[in-house]
Amino acid sequence: MNALGVAPGRAGINRVSFSDADMAGRRWLMTRMADAGLATWMDCIGNVFGRWDVSDGPAVMVGSHLDTVVMGGPLDGTLGVCAGLEAVRTLQDAGLTPRRSIVVVSTADEEGRFGGMLGSQAICGEVGPDWIAAAADSDGNRLSDALSTQGLDPTGPVAWSPESIAAFLELHIEQGPVLERAGEAIGLVDAVSGVFNWTVTLTGEANHSGTTPMDHRRDAFRGLADFGHAIDRIIAEAGGEQSRLTVGKATLSPNFPHSVAGTASFSIIGRDADESVMEALAEACRSSLAAAAERHGLGLDIVKHSWLKPTRLDAGIHQRLCRLCDRMDVPYRTLPSGAGHDAQTFARHVPAGLVFVPSAGGISHAPNEHTEWESIRPGANLLAQAVADLAL
Amino acid sequence: MNALGVAPGRAGINRVSFSDADMAGRRWLMTRMADAGLATWMDCIGNVFGRWDVSDGPAVMVGSHLDTVVMGGPLDGTLGVCAGLEAVRTLQDAGLTPRRSIVVVSTADEEGRFGGMLGSQAICGEVGPDWIAAAADSDGNRLSDALSTQGLDPTGPVAWSPESIAAFLELHIEQGPVLERAGEAIGLVDAVSGVFNWTVTLTGEANHSGTTPMDHRRDAFRGLADFGHAIDRIIAEAGGEQSRLTVGKATLSPNFPHSVAGTASFSIIGRDADESVMEALAEACRSSLAAAAERHGLGLDIVKHSWLKPTRLDAGIHQRLCRLCDRMDVPYRTLPSGAGHDAQTFARHVPAGLVFVPSAGGISHAPNEHTEWESIRPGANLLAQAVADLAL
Repeated sequence: MNALGVAPGRAGINRVSFSDADMAGRRWLMTRMADAGLATWMDCIGNVFGRWDVSDGPAVMVGSHLDTVVMGGPLDGTLGVCAGLEAVRTLQDAGLTPRRSIVVVSTADEEGRFGGMLGSQAICGEVGPDWIAAAADSDGNRLSDALSTQGLDPTGPVAWSPESIAAFLELHIEQGPVLERAGEAIGLVDAVSGVFNWTVTLTGEANHSGTTPMDHRRDAFRGLADFGHAIDRIIAEAGGEQSRLTVGKATLSPNFPHSVAGTASFSIIGRDADESVMEALAEACRSSLAAAAERHGLGLDIVKHSWLKPTRLDAGIHQRLCRLCDRMDVPYRTLPSGAGHDAQTFARHVPAGLVFVPSAGGISHAPNEHTEWESIRPGANLLAQAVADLAL
Repeated sequence: MNALGVAPGRAGINRVSFSDADMAGRRWLMTRMADAGLATWMDCIGNVFGRWDVSDGPAVMVGSHLDTVVMGGPLDGTLGVCAGLEAVRTLQDAGLTPRRSIVVVSTADEEGRFGGMLGSQAICGEVGPDWIAAAADSDGNRLSDALSTQGLDPTGPVAWSPESIAAFLELHIEQGPVLERAGEAIGLVDAVSGVFNWTVTLTGEANHSGTTPMDHRRDAFRGLADFGHAIDRIIAEAGGEQSRLTVGKATLSPNFPHSVAGTASFSIIGRDADESVMEALAEACRSSLAAAAERHGLGLDIVKHSWLKPTRLDAGIHQRLCRLCDRMDVPYRTLPSGAGHDAQTFARHVPAGLVFVPSAGGISHAPNEHTEWESIRPGANLLAQAVADLAL
């Protein structure tokens, strides 16, 4: 798979949604699914399915996505799709026949080029033709044009009924350092953190760095610095072990060494697996920002882009996965996922489970994203066991 | 003068060094100097002089510069040149004849397009042909090409002997808010602050904002924030009333909202009128940065671009100016200059004095830089009195 989306002079894997490389990956997957005897098709927005069809009843769905971010790595999404197909082939090799149909899926645009998680949301009936007609990427390219260019029909039906899916299972790299540092082979996700996304602008006065006494300044940078310094305190007072607060993007203006910053504009991304904790974090951020603005004589503007609630994954599937790990005698831990995954979309509609394997160095969304095969095997085996557990 | 360097659709005054507008301004000044009966010439690097020649002995030199920053204001430099010429015309109108020659000067490139203060440094013999041959602006344009393009000869002689200048006097807007807020008409500068200019890079690890626990992060932004938050403490502990610490420019990488910052690169500009205080500030900054880097697991790199010592202006001239203010009965204060001025270059070689008038709102290097004529008059009168005091 990862021979596709590689180009000379370009780092990492590049199968951005609906690019030619992304579509080539989907078509390659369909040939491998067909080789395995599965009924394969691509729906109207590019989701690829391979069905081991033994019954019209609810199917066990397993998979992830093949699209990548720009300069992405080889495992994010791709591992879960390939491990899903491999689980099916393992059952076949073992001469087993399921009582439920098993569907391997590769969802479309999980990385959110057009916002959200298009493929899984469409399968679950969360987005329809109107949303698709309106969606565009950050460069203004319309989703409907991207689909048409690839020979897809943006107006066609995509949604599955919840009754048609018995469960959804996904294997994914952790994308963080927790499992590797703890020496644990597997993470069993019980919840996906909610996230709020703000852009904050502090407005002071751009002045000469030499002629403006410190107590006459309205220095937007120093308001930003006071907030950044307070992050530990905010989490200690309002958050918990799973809380995350990140200022990843910041821009000063005029951004000259000899000018006091007139404005500081920056992102705040807050996450927790508990919505009430998210609310406490958001309130503490607001208070801290207001105090920093007051202290430095700054205007404060907060644009609240989004508030995504935490998603709890299915407790029954989580218990099954715990039991299987115990039986396989592999060290695991239950943890929330800080990143979004297809499993959280499915979890809003059907029982869903999400399994992590370690990420070397916690690195992801980067060319050097890596996990040794040795470290992938326990998770892939667990996925196959879980598919068998649910489908046989 | 300020009809030159104005263009439709472009804010402020734009007479950037050696631009056509800058040269047009210098030529216009020469015609007004000639109208006043002065012997006028432009030297090999664009300094313009108008000499009321009454003696071959040491001359009283008075002036400033006509070049502006990009989108500059109408008064920075220009006021001092025009007020210098007006002082001469006032003496002429009063029928007075000096015993020393008086030279009105407009220096070249005071705003430092090519680094330093080219014009005054060349007059004082601090830069010679080798320096000029090597100098280039931040876009890579060579000074020698800029001079040749304007018909100047970058290899010609420019320096005056210190014995040829009895004193240098300069009137300038304060570029800060101190005089306006204190309700004082005049500032008499006793020293120009020294300045150190650092670029600091903190290097951590760019990670996913959702999957990386807070205690596993090496967040370069938070190192920057800790330093920014410490600025008040650093000044309280190591600095004084005239100390200034400014982080005006900061860049995060990768600078994405969902990524923990892998690097933070930022400027630190430190100033004080006392070099031992500058040294204490620099050491306190270094300690604070080292502690922040340690706290967040970051690499620390400090590039020390420059260390300009404070310059003390001539105590005798300062006393003369104080006495003249007392005689004129105008409220004044003695203060250091946080910004650099031609007077500080001259002060290294000859007795030099610098007079400030208030800046409305402390604004400078901006199109809305402004001082009412009513607020300029006391300073312009003081300059004329001081020229008379030194030259008659």
